[in-house]
Amino acid sequence: MKMVSQHVVVAALAAAFGLLIGGLIGHFGTQTITSQDQEKISMMEKLVADKWVQEEHLNQRIIDLVNTDNLRNNLKELTRKPHLAGTPRDDELARLVQERFLQAGFDTADLVPYNLLLSRPDFNNPNLVTLQDGTGTIVFTSAYSEKPLQADDDDPNFVHAFSGYAPAGDVSSAKGMGVIYVNYGRVEDFDKLEEFGVNVSGSIVIARYGKIFRGNKLAHAQERGAKGVILFSDPEDVAQEGVEPQKVYPNTWWLPGSGIQRGTTFMGDGDPLTPGWPSTEHAYRLKVEEADLPKIPCQPIGYDDAKVILEKMGGKAAPDEWKGGITGINYNLGPDFLPQYSEYTLRLQTHNSLNVYRSYNVIGIIKGNVEPDRYVLVGNHRDSWGYGASDPSSGTAQLLETARVFGQLMKEGWRPRRTLVFCSWGAEEYALIGSTEWVEEHVDKLQERSVMYLNTDTCASGPIFNARASPLLRDSILKISKLVPGVRDGPTLYDEWAAYHAVRNKTTPEVKTLGSGSDYVPFSFYCGIPCMDIWFRVDKNKHDISTYASYHTGYETFYMIDKNVDPGFRIIQGCSRVASLFLKYFADSAIIPYSLEHLPRTMKKALKKLKANGNAQKLLNIYDKFPILEESLDNFTDVVTVFAHNLKTIQDDLNPVTLRAINDQIMKLEQAFILPEGLPGRPDVRHAVFASSQFDSYSSSGFPGISDLLYNMDKLDSTETKIREKEIRRHISDLTIIVQRATSLLKEFHFI
Amino acid sequence: MKMVSQHVVVAALAAAFGLLIGGLIGHFGTQTITSQDQEKISMMEKLVADKWVQEEHLNQRIIDLVNTDNLRNNLKELTRKPHLAGTPRDDELARLVQERFLQAGFDTADLVPYNLLLSRPDFNNPNLVTLQDGTGTIVFTSAYSEKPLQADDDDPNFVHAFSGYAPAGDVSSAKGMGVIYVNYGRVEDFDKLEEFGVNVSGSIVIARYGKIFRGNKLAHAQERGAKGVILFSDPEDVAQEGVEPQKVYPNTWWLPGSGIQRGTTFMGDGDPLTPGWPSTEHAYRLKVEEADLPKIPCQPIGYDDAKVILEKMGGKAAPDEWKGGITGINYNLGPDFLPQYSEYTLRLQTHNSLNVYRSYNVIGIIKGNVEPDRYVLVGNHRDSWGYGASDPSSGTAQLLETARVFGQLMKEGWRPRRTLVFCSWGAEEYALIGSTEWVEEHVDKLQERSVMYLNTDTCASGPIFNARASPLLRDSILKISKLVPGVRDGPTLYDEWAAYHAVRNKTTPEVKTLGSGSDYVPFSFYCGIPCMDIWFRVDKNKHDISTYASYHTGYETFYMIDKNVDPGFRIIQGCSRVASLFLKYFADSAIIPYSLEHLPRTMKKALKKLKANGNAQKLLNIYDKFPILEESLDNFTDVVTVFAHNLKTIQDDLNPVTLRAINDQIMKLEQAFILPEGLPGRPDVRHAVFASSQFDSYSSSGFPGISDLLYNMDKLDSTETKIREKEIRRHISDLTIIVQRATSLLKEFHFI
Repeated sequence: MKMVSQHVVVAALAAAFGLLIGGLIGHFGTQTITSQDQEKISMMEKLVADKWVQEEHLNQRIIDLVNTDNLRNNLKELTRKPHLAGTPRDDELARLVQERFLQAGFDTADLVPYNLLLSRPDFNNPNLVTLQDGTGTIVFTSAYSEKPLQADDDDPNFVHAFSGYAPAGDVSSAKGMGVIYVNYGRVEDFDKLEEFGVNVSGSIVIARYGKIFRGNKLAHAQERGAKGVILFSDPEDVAQEGVEPQKVYPNTWWLPGSGIQRGTTFMGDGDPLTPGWPSTEHAYRLKVEEADLPKIPCQPIGYDDAKVILEKMGGKAAPDEWKGGITGINYNLGPDFLPQYSEYTLRLQTHNSLNVYRSYNVIGIIKGNVEPDRYVLVGNHRDSWGYGASDPSSGTAQLLETARVFGQLMKEGWRPRRTLVFCSWGAEEYALIGSTEWVEEHVDKLQERSVMYLNTDTCASGPIFNARASPLLRDSILKISKLVPGVRDGPTLYDEWAAYHAVRNKTTPEVKTLGSGSDYVPFSFYCGIPCMDIWFRVDKNKHDISTYASYHTGYETFYMIDKNVDPGFRIIQGCSRVASLFLKYFADSAIIPYSLEHLPRTMKKALKKLKANGNAQKLLNIYDKFPILEESLDNFTDVVTVFAHNLKTIQDDLNPVTLRAINDQIMKLEQAFILPEGLPGRPDVRHAVFASSQFDSYSSSGFPGISDLLYNMDKLDSTETKIREKEIRRHISDLTIIVQRATSLLKEFHFI
Repeated sequence: MKMVSQHVVVAALAAAFGLLIGGLIGHFGTQTITSQDQEKISMMEKLVADKWVQEEHLNQRIIDLVNTDNLRNNLKELTRKPHLAGTPRDDELARLVQERFLQAGFDTADLVPYNLLLSRPDFNNPNLVTLQDGTGTIVFTSAYSEKPLQADDDDPNFVHAFSGYAPAGDVSSAKGMGVIYVNYGRVEDFDKLEEFGVNVSGSIVIARYGKIFRGNKLAHAQERGAKGVILFSDPEDVAQEGVEPQKVYPNTWWLPGSGIQRGTTFMGDGDPLTPGWPSTEHAYRLKVEEADLPKIPCQPIGYDDAKVILEKMGGKAAPDEWKGGITGINYNLGPDFLPQYSEYTLRLQTHNSLNVYRSYNVIGIIKGNVEPDRYVLVGNHRDSWGYGASDPSSGTAQLLETARVFGQLMKEGWRPRRTLVFCSWGAEEYALIGSTEWVEEHVDKLQERSVMYLNTDTCASGPIFNARASPLLRDSILKISKLVPGVRDGPTLYDEWAAYHAVRNKTTPEVKTLGSGSDYVPFSFYCGIPCMDIWFRVDKNKHDISTYASYHTGYETFYMIDKNVDPGFRIIQGCSRVASLFLKYFADSAIIPYSLEHLPRTMKKALKKLKANGNAQKLLNIYDKFPILEESLDNFTDVVTVFAHNLKTIQDDLNPVTLRAINDQIMKLEQAFILPEGLPGRPDVRHAVFASSQFDSYSSSGFPGISDLLYNMDKLDSTETKIREKEIRRHISDLTIIVQRATSLLKEFHFI
């Protein structure tokens, strides 16, 4: 604990907040930290963990109960057939989850249906990229599915490769023209193309997967006037050890040449027909043509097919760093074909359609016996593009086992202090739809009652434990990881995790804040509920890839997990153990074990980062009150420090109502950062302090509103600049106000 | 209590909500109301009132403590000098209030400053309406202040008559043209003028005060292209017993001919430079020219001056019902002068200016000893246009005495269970600014922690007790009124109140929902906190006027209250007694004593009213799912009925955390009706169920979004109609969702 002089802090607070409501922290105004305090701190540390610590044997019981055979059987059943959202098999799995919750002895387990606009390919009329020669003869047709490479790779209901929510379309290049290679399709890539004098307007572009969300790639191309997009997986990214059969699936988790990454390209979250409100049965819906969906066709292909196209392209040579891993080609930028193909044309035909389908969430409840109206939530999505062995089924396998473990504890006499809410989400792959609609439907209840939301998506994508979280949850995950046995050779998960980060010169494991990408998004970015996302990932010390290469392809199979990623299921076991212990910690600790001091600390770090590269001066020039934001943050830090200190010194005669009042204070703290109207131009992203950045949905950002507003500001004309500067002033002012609000929430320590 | 078959209700609920979160009310699913329940109900009724009932002697003590001499002295001091917002005298009074709170023994009493854009006349250059004859000679100049009629009517710092926030301007009519008489300046009045073929565009209009908020009058005129507005008080409204000196002030509270009603014409709430966010010291502010303020000059005059103008007007005769009480004139519509004045012109010169002034709220706190983080708030504004004897000073006199009474109780050993927050608002008269900015600053804390807000503005405007409130507070005010001695001849206030309503054929006193007009607005319409506004009003069985006629004039003096409105100060005493008992009831009752069942009941009534006059069919034609709103409301009614029943049957072993959980459920109920983005076109009005209507800010409306959207729909062209219909569909859907959310909040009774 950071020691502070109470006198100094209190004086600063009195100066800053003296005129606001309440008596400030006057109660503590004359205190300094004494040895008696230290005694109280010890006493308090006991109280914080309370029942959780007293029942330490239960932690061991949880660890013992999580069973690898169960996890393997769960995964096998979950991945037995494709289960795209809204299909009969996905419904079957929803009922399976419900049944397992009820078998475990949950108080309730309900199917929660929503009718949603989902996108599908035409299974009778596959999407195609074709090349025609000068005679109009089709000389190449892209594949829409993977080649079966081992016994279980095929299925009559196999999901064709397609880009979710990209429209049906039929676009062709002009004679002699093919595609423009746009590297990863990032803003800087398109900017570079402009520098090269290559204009994508009116052309079909081809982008490799990686670095940013595929939806951003399509959006960037569309904004710049492209008429179609082809996406491909490049061996440099997905077959880093070589493309030979023994180096790829089914022999490794690297991707063979016919593997095609599916995935959504919709930039919003939730049902596209109900942006910002829930898709309840009778809710008003936009017409399909009013929905903010991609306007140009898009289709993913494998690198074998990409090579057939790219090898024929002429134009300027791509810069070296744009050149991927397809051998024997030069990665020319196009759009012209090489002279020998000067009569060729390229055609992109997609037959995707939009229809309303019913999809289910499954919500299972174990009621708390002391504070049943306080929720500790855990969730994982169920739907999948391909087989979904690991995304998301390793997470679902974990969820079912975690549920079973809690059921067993209940049979042995345990009940959580707070209510546990288990969520199996539908239609995540399309746009985090199941979770978003449910949060939109119950936003007031969830904001009022939620202690935290724990997300798993892919549990086992590799051997390295990883967690991203609200700073409030940072210490707790470190603590839990010390209780869990290692999934490889380490004595504990913490040891393995720390060893990984030690290679990266970190003294403790890193817990970053959340970017976009899975079902925690509506809980965190829309509601301000502290969230954590956990998974085991690829060893980035060895490979530059965020998940196994068969992600979202037809090779994402049970076979791959069982043979290549988690033989023995110790990784998924680790995932279930962490989840179970974590849930129990937050469900049972008398005082919610948030790590309060990380909140201002992380904010200060984010602000520092934001101020780098000349931005500090730039922001000061735009708004002379910018330094007040930093001052407010300093005040917030002081108040949190005092509060956290007091939390550790409170008397042991704490009555239950005071305990509840303190928990209420800290539960609402992160919600103070919610702007009801959302970030500038992003009504569904309301968390003004930690959220994804607008121009790369997958990455996280501190104070994303500012960085979004500063983005590309040098490209604006003088009128646009004036408007933008005004938005920046208003937004910095808003940020200052919410930091002051958060400060005010903690200003008095249980109000005495 | 309405008895219901639990089986039927539960079945209906299970059907409607079976798939939502939680185990529904399964706990009660097999119960019917038995005689044992009845026993529990008796037990519970004891518990609901709890300490409050146990300490019944304290109620009597409160009644005894409220002292008329104190109230008279308070009022005398408060009205000794003019105290326009932001003037030195208003600051002095803020310090006086602070001092009184501290003297009473409050835990804190803080001055909370805001820097605000306020409008003032030029005290060296008065606003004028003049008439010139054909030679350019000024033949008439309007007065900008009242004639002193008794010793204390004058003061060197007297506030000139002006219309707050109306701009400086200098507009003249064309030769031979004067003003157009627009009756009360309502939409229907302007519509009628169109029917008469009178076009106000380019003209100066004259409107009489009354019926609607003066800001609406100016806005209507401005929308229709008028270039200036003169407002006057008509004897028909303000001198209903005659204009002779013995019939008006200082001999009665009716208005003499030189009385001029001041008041704001700004249509928004809060500082015009910070719409939607707080005016904290460092907050971003609009430029003055960006603020949404009236664009045409406006000036109020007395009926003596109005007569001078109106008697010269020609044009068509006004319809009979437009003719007011000025004798000897015909109320012609204009704009032409009568032939004998055909060379005349009329000129309106205003010299108002906008500047930033500092104004203070005073916030005093008595901390609760059980739930200090639950707030029971009471507020009253301090600033005034004229002397402000009754608006607001009778309310402030009450606030100070109520504070003293609670201070005395504390000296006698009492402490409230919950925290009492006393608020003395600044700059209410300009746009409810002090309260609005404070609520905007602390919105999250207030929504999280407030049990209710009690407002008084003018305590004593007449002898008839009146309350407008959230339906949740309805029963409590009836109950309290039975404890308070009558202020005239009745044994209790309730008797007097009921007698008044009996004349109007009501079996119980009427408690309407809130319209706009005082500082409860941000608490209720922005936050959804249950609010009540109390005052003693003019006897409407005798006079068709809402407050004494000298409202906002220079005759609103201590003298008037002392001699004409409340000699003996029994009315203000009644006000303080009601406020004190009401605050204590909500601060001390273990379970918050909301009357839950009034909420759905009032909503159903509002919906029924909305459906009248063919609107039901109209809405059904626009949106076939309109009936779902009604169905949802029926479900809500059933769930509230069951919940309220259960609340009366709970066991007496209720633990403090469960008690708190139940209170949390009902505290958040009305907040479920808040739409974060506000009503269509009204971002600062977020209460979708009960709020003021857009076209008459003073009146209240159920589901105001629908009535606002339906308003004048027949005047839209087909494109506009399509857009409007879409807004209606979306809004009805939103309403259905929030009713379902509110239902969900109560679905489980303390979650067991």
